[in-house]
Amino acid sequence: MTSARIADYINANQFDEPCLIVDTEVVRENYLSYAHALPDTRIFYAVKANPAPQILSLLAKLGSSFDCASMQEIEMALAAGATPDRISFGNTIKKERDIARAFDAGIRLFAVDAVAEVDKVARAAPGARVFCRILCDGEGAEWPLSRKFGCATTMAPHVLGTARDLGLEPYGVSFHVGSQQTNLDAWDKALAEAAWVFDAMAQQNVYLQMVNLGGGFPTRYLRDVPATEAYGEAIHGALIKHFGNALPLTIIEPGRGMVGSAGTIRAEVVLVSTKDVEFDVRWVYLDIGKFGGLAETMDEAIRYKIRSRRDHDEMAPCILAGPTCDSADVLYEKNHYPMPLTLTVGDEILIEGTGAYTTTYSAQAFNGFPPLRSVIL
Amino acid sequence: MTSARIADYINANQFDEPCLIVDTEVVRENYLSYAHALPDTRIFYAVKANPAPQILSLLAKLGSSFDCASMQEIEMALAAGATPDRISFGNTIKKERDIARAFDAGIRLFAVDAVAEVDKVARAAPGARVFCRILCDGEGAEWPLSRKFGCATTMAPHVLGTARDLGLEPYGVSFHVGSQQTNLDAWDKALAEAAWVFDAMAQQNVYLQMVNLGGGFPTRYLRDVPATEAYGEAIHGALIKHFGNALPLTIIEPGRGMVGSAGTIRAEVVLVSTKDVEFDVRWVYLDIGKFGGLAETMDEAIRYKIRSRRDHDEMAPCILAGPTCDSADVLYEKNHYPMPLTLTVGDEILIEGTGAYTTTYSAQAFNGFPPLRSVIL
Repeated sequence: MTSARIADYINANQFDEPCLIVDTEVVRENYLSYAHALPDTRIFYAVKANPAPQILSLLAKLGSSFDCASMQEIEMALAAGATPDRISFGNTIKKERDIARAFDAGIRLFAVDAVAEVDKVARAAPGARVFCRILCDGEGAEWPLSRKFGCATTMAPHVLGTARDLGLEPYGVSFHVGSQQTNLDAWDKALAEAAWVFDAMAQQNVYLQMVNLGGGFPTRYLRDVPATEAYGEAIHGALIKHFGNALPLTIIEPGRGMVGSAGTIRAEVVLVSTKDVEFDVRWVYLDIGKFGGLAETMDEAIRYKIRSRRDHDEMAPCILAGPTCDSADVLYEKNHYPMPLTLTVGDEILIEGTGAYTTTYSAQAFNGFPPLRSVIL
Repeated sequence: MTSARIADYINANQFDEPCLIVDTEVVRENYLSYAHALPDTRIFYAVKANPAPQILSLLAKLGSSFDCASMQEIEMALAAGATPDRISFGNTIKKERDIARAFDAGIRLFAVDAVAEVDKVARAAPGARVFCRILCDGEGAEWPLSRKFGCATTMAPHVLGTARDLGLEPYGVSFHVGSQQTNLDAWDKALAEAAWVFDAMAQQNVYLQMVNLGGGFPTRYLRDVPATEAYGEAIHGALIKHFGNALPLTIIEPGRGMVGSAGTIRAEVVLVSTKDVEFDVRWVYLDIGKFGGLAETMDEAIRYKIRSRRDHDEMAPCILAGPTCDSADVLYEKNHYPMPLTLTVGDEILIEGTGAYTTTYSAQAFNGFPPLRSVIL
């Protein structure tokens, strides 16, 4: 899954510290694949997945819109060439002063999931469009969602009705089926809920226009995942089933699916050891771990594909850990990871599918280690 | 637990983002309290807990030595005025080129827990002193240690014997009883193991000199913890019990215990909501969470004392979460946290005992949010 351009870059360079290399050609292919699979859907790239300026400006040129989690991300999207009408302030948790700053910058589309958030938007962004996020159970997702975002579907009409009463434009409904979602039926269930909210609002003479299908589109780690086309078909079928011939505008917010497969981390083996003379499980320590960019290995949620130049040798399970003095900085311990028996100190390691949620997650200076560096090709 | 100087600073200033405020007077008191409780023990401050230059230079002036996890931390300790003989490269996982850099900078004391690490030290730091870390079970600790660091006690003579064979100086044994350790007996068990290694090495005519008692000294969060004096007495008693009148040199590596109680994070309530009309558990969203510096709430391990100006009002349990679009960014969900029922958007929140393991852990730019800022008084 490491592109030829990335492989060439790694072979031509020396590395003192771990480094993420991203191939923007793969990002372009991923964007076009979404645009092809869901031709009637607007694509809002989830900037938090990887906000590298080169990625944002490529996507802006391709016509993408942007889902932003903070005022800083809005500024990055604007700097990359996106106009304010192509930006959504998609975080349901916003300071009122940040809403005001976004409104001043021309942003008119805001996510909400509670009356208290509607109050803030009404004060700081009068007349803006809001969409209400509803809770999904996230079943089938590898990085499941808690109940942190969204309200019960039955509460959404109250939230959107309050928005209307306060002079905002109730615009639609959003949900998120869970990141790295591989169950195609997940969208069917969520769209049934969204259609229920549309009906309930119509009874108040409020006609919603938009369904935000969220993200959740997977990137390939170790297991095969359904192709983007299969997602497109499943979503299109579910839309027709639940909305008939009154199809809403739709948007999607891919993040991991847009950039995950476009990146590979080049790392290094720092130590291979056992804990006892007769104890046979090897510990393999890398120069990157949970605090250096691989935060999504938390609870061993995401299992990356890890390669070395010795993968043709005999493999045996081992425990993989990071380089910090923190005992929680262990990547795979419950489910051991097979690595070559010949693996040794100084060996190069490629961690694939790491284009999303790595650089920005990495700790600013934990144990004195610098945050993960990235190179964009 | 927020010192008067910190409270005054917070009252006199405006904050747009979360901020850690550290009172160096409290750090000074903590240092003197260790020095008093363990007068014959050298104190190596664990730089990773908080590497702020003002903290390092204060401790250097007070006579502290420094336990460093990386070459970057070694450079920070040297810049703060520590001489190389007061610095230990205490990470058992080191790149050989970093060992060489440390040796060039004059560092002569290195941690090891495996033969492969001894090989690297022998090549890159010829003649240096090494101490071997042994495994402890961490029972009784709030932030338990995995098996990541250390080898079985019975393997330590092999590791230290190899060091001797390769021209290094086998200097001692280290262990770590687990961070935030409140069980005073933990040191007794570990010292028995350390004494066993001393005996086994003496049979090879190698006379170890030093026991590194590690860290684990707790800071007070919500529960009372034994006073530093009680630790000193327990450790002194265990040393005499296991080493008799041939007491070794001892060092300790407090990190959390040195700076944890010296810091308070000033944060803010961004949103208070419920997920359903009839659902009564409130969600309280702060502008700081797991990725903004409170990483140690992982698995709800560390339960900070959180205060607001409304704490005299009626309290009710709530779920506390951070501001990012990440569903894992929830602080306390399994064990709800009591907060005032009157708590509202914009309220100031003080998170106490946060001087350790907060700034450096924080993500460099997750969701576009800047890393945790700190002010050192």
